[in-house]
Amino acid sequence: MRTTEVLFEPGRQDIVVTREFAAPPAVVFAAMTDPELIPRWWGSRRFETTVEAMDVRRGGLWRFVTRHRDPADGAGTPYAFWGVYHDVVPGELVVSTLEFAMGGPGRLQLVTDAFEPTGDGGTRYTNVSLFQSPDDRDGWIPTDMDTGIRESHDLLDGLLEAVR
Amino acid sequence: MRTTEVLFEPGRQDIVVTREFAAPPAVVFAAMTDPELIPRWWGSRRFETTVEAMDVRRGGLWRFVTRHRDPADGAGTPYAFWGVYHDVVPGELVVSTLEFAMGGPGRLQLVTDAFEPTGDGGTRYTNVSLFQSPDDRDGWIPTDMDTGIRESHDLLDGLLEAVR
Repeated sequence: MRTTEVLFEPGRQDIVVTREFAAPPAVVFAAMTDPELIPRWWGSRRFETTVEAMDVRRGGLWRFVTRHRDPADGAGTPYAFWGVYHDVVPGELVVSTLEFAMGGPGRLQLVTDAFEPTGDGGTRYTNVSLFQSPDDRDGWIPTDMDTGIRESHDLLDGLLEAVR
Repeated sequence: MRTTEVLFEPGRQDIVVTREFAAPPAVVFAAMTDPELIPRWWGSRRFETTVEAMDVRRGGLWRFVTRHRDPADGAGTPYAFWGVYHDVVPGELVVSTLEFAMGGPGRLQLVTDAFEPTGDGGTRYTNVSLFQSPDDRDGWIPTDMDTGIRESHDLLDGLLEAVR
């Protein structure tokens, strides 16, 4: 069973997420950068996500608005995430900024997504989120973000199965 | 005498540069984001800089090519720096990416420029360059980058004097 690893290394300002997918880099890249697929995996099942912009090219803007589905979590309250694409190399690399529009610590990140071929026709995906301070980074540890990322990647895995 | 401070704090992935200028934030911001002025201060006198792009707005691209003036430093060899603007708030804030096109460690940074008014009509300028790892950051310590930054800021100071 493939699983997502989420690494908070001490003395650093980043979170490193790795996952292997059973599809080649070009396919995983295409799925992850498809605005129509985003609502089906990004942010896990607990959120309903709307893609307001996703212009996947250097200088392009992206903006997602997401809402908790569960009324116990305050369903309906919108949370906006946005940024720009610094670099896009199809099938290999996306470097982008991410800002959480609600403000506060940890709101701004530099995100690097790398797609590498594995020996067996799959992809090793690495996502590095770089924060402005160690405290900004550590502020995410108590949240259940790793559970959400695993769920999101499991959903993406299912979409990739369907594509094959 | 105003001076530029360059701080490499242990256990972090950033370099923090601060400087006070004797002009209000709107004027300092306008000078620093003017493509025509860049060759007169950016990178110090030791470099000749050409602005190939500088579209100072969200999603806009920037690209500078710089060459050592001194033949002893390999005059003429071009070094390219480029990035995109994540956010631009006139007179207050610029958040941008910076990539050193030569590749290698430390090539990618997230840069935050903040302009704050001082009590006496001046500006406290803070520049934070965030690197992908502590090693990427530390790789800049042995260089004379702090000398270059001070020289650049002194040149900018002179331009601001001329503007007043």
